[in-house]
Amino acid sequence: MITNKLNFTVGPVQSSDAVRELGSEQVPYFRTPEFSELMFENERLMKAFTKADENARVCFMTGSGTASMEAAVANCFTQEDKVLVINGGSFGHRFEELVEIYDIPHTTIHLEMGKALTREQLYAYDGQGYTGLLVNVHETSTGVHYDIEMISDFCKKNGIFLIVDAISSFLCDEFDMKALGASVMITGSQKALACPPGISIIVLAPNAVERVYANKPKCMYLDLKLALKNGERGQTPFTPAVATLRQINVRLKEIEAAGGVEAEIKRIADLAEDFRKQIIELPFEIISDSMSNCVTPLHPKNVSAYDIFTILKDEYDIWICPNGGDMADKVFRVGHIGYLTKEDNKRLIDALKDMQRRNLL
Amino acid sequence: MITNKLNFTVGPVQSSDAVRELGSEQVPYFRTPEFSELMFENERLMKAFTKADENARVCFMTGSGTASMEAAVANCFTQEDKVLVINGGSFGHRFEELVEIYDIPHTTIHLEMGKALTREQLYAYDGQGYTGLLVNVHETSTGVHYDIEMISDFCKKNGIFLIVDAISSFLCDEFDMKALGASVMITGSQKALACPPGISIIVLAPNAVERVYANKPKCMYLDLKLALKNGERGQTPFTPAVATLRQINVRLKEIEAAGGVEAEIKRIADLAEDFRKQIIELPFEIISDSMSNCVTPLHPKNVSAYDIFTILKDEYDIWICPNGGDMADKVFRVGHIGYLTKEDNKRLIDALKDMQRRNLL
Repeated sequence: MITNKLNFTVGPVQSSDAVRELGSEQVPYFRTPEFSELMFENERLMKAFTKADENARVCFMTGSGTASMEAAVANCFTQEDKVLVINGGSFGHRFEELVEIYDIPHTTIHLEMGKALTREQLYAYDGQGYTGLLVNVHETSTGVHYDIEMISDFCKKNGIFLIVDAISSFLCDEFDMKALGASVMITGSQKALACPPGISIIVLAPNAVERVYANKPKCMYLDLKLALKNGERGQTPFTPAVATLRQINVRLKEIEAAGGVEAEIKRIADLAEDFRKQIIELPFEIISDSMSNCVTPLHPKNVSAYDIFTILKDEYDIWICPNGGDMADKVFRVGHIGYLTKEDNKRLIDALKDMQRRNLL
Repeated sequence: MITNKLNFTVGPVQSSDAVRELGSEQVPYFRTPEFSELMFENERLMKAFTKADENARVCFMTGSGTASMEAAVANCFTQEDKVLVINGGSFGHRFEELVEIYDIPHTTIHLEMGKALTREQLYAYDGQGYTGLLVNVHETSTGVHYDIEMISDFCKKNGIFLIVDAISSFLCDEFDMKALGASVMITGSQKALACPPGISIIVLAPNAVERVYANKPKCMYLDLKLALKNGERGQTPFTPAVATLRQINVRLKEIEAAGGVEAEIKRIADLAEDFRKQIIELPFEIISDSMSNCVTPLHPKNVSAYDIFTILKDEYDIWICPNGGDMADKVFRVGHIGYLTKEDNKRLIDALKDMQRRNLL
């Protein structure tokens, strides 16, 4: 059996008591007016917290964030499009793979690890007939938060359909979907929503709803027409992760009661700031040009990042977030999302200081 | 807030106390050797309970049963195949839609509602070069359990690759994957596995694993190569529904401790038999030619089936399972899966008898 540890990963993260308690209830039957009401409330609150257009729609997909990234690409773009992909890490790379699978003409802007997208890099593609742009506003793998205002301006100037993966940025960083003119915004249940993984969420601006209805992707499970159509009656086309959708409902209402999206962003920003102030004393280098409040990506100057992950897990009962692939030894990440407090930050800092005393850093 | 009722639907169903308790724990980080061990155990027990080949593999998909039905079609068949689809209800129709989406040459055997597939119907396609067959061994929408031995013999004789959706039949009815020569078997977390919905499971015989690796479906999320590859280290390509996978682990071990798959099938068969004996006294007609132990499909002789669903829900705190579409008024179903007892059967029978006294049946 897996014991639970203090969790500073970027998902799954710690949940509130109310969310956890709901996890122990029997899961109700869902083809009912009662469940439809809950889903309408989820849609209303997601639109409020993303500042979406009043005619925007929300699809709740039973699947990981990648399911919704794929659904966005497959339902909103066609071979008639010409798409710019911002690839600054694993998740940008995933968008690039997706447009390749769906044969969507595209150009990729490759960024160095930890580097922000510059105005020069982006405007090299100004006035060249691009119709779409795919960006992970927070590239979770490297902890870089891109300048979304700049990207938005570029897209507006060029009439570009903007799809924003905000999976790990939602509730952490300011995001005004309507003001930015973003057509699609994606997030997931297990990031700052702090519910179990299993649901990803797609907010579609009215022009995205139009594209979905005009398009005919070669898939059933990720066909957003089915999700939109069933959503009109507060339902999903296939049996969804009902328990997680109920937990999302409780969590969205918790956020609303505590002051809404601004209050939640401030809470997470405060936690991130508190941690970043204290980490300065330790032998780490922050590797991101421009951080989200979601996570702090750190490069240990003297030892393997993956070893730090293992030692904290096995000897201190703390999870930090390791990186995969060729970043595994270079970078680890400390998340600030989920049910965490400044006392928890202190416990992690103390553990790292203890490792330093033991010559393990 | 949704209150919970006594649940006789076919999913989500009631969970055991141990499964529910786990739902209230924090969800652990999963890119760890500890979680990999749990996944290996899940794979081992799924293979044991489906009686799969020792070299079979198991993919745990975060998604509904339809996600796995689509993955099976997209990964195992190509335009070079010639597939027979058994369509006896909503889920057979779904397989038909899937082969259409993926442009797979096919012939559909349409069955009347509630009717079993006959030997004559099937053998009309003998020796005609079919390479694949898709069947929902238990067509959940109408409660018909097909003669899988007969289908298996036909497929063996014709060298046909057999995909069996056993979503609502697994743990309810005998199923010996290796003896039947089935190449793919599909089930879901929220049926007799009695966990929350959100995970579907695909068991692949060695010849199916080969097909998956030889094939290149135009999708990422449902690409089983990624699932198989990551599964070699007990992991998934994308963040899975970790909480549900842990609950599945507890539940599989509960079944093992109680005597394994045979004991669980017997328990459910006893519950079904107990209910079916008592329902004779009431003004219902069983509409299925050949039932699974999973569910009893009933046609009320005098009133609307959907009204019975609504009255039981609102006035007796009991859920039965309504049907959709044009069957809504004609048929309702009573499930025998999940954490149910004979006392629960009695409560439902008493409620129906009370409705009869009130002239509501």
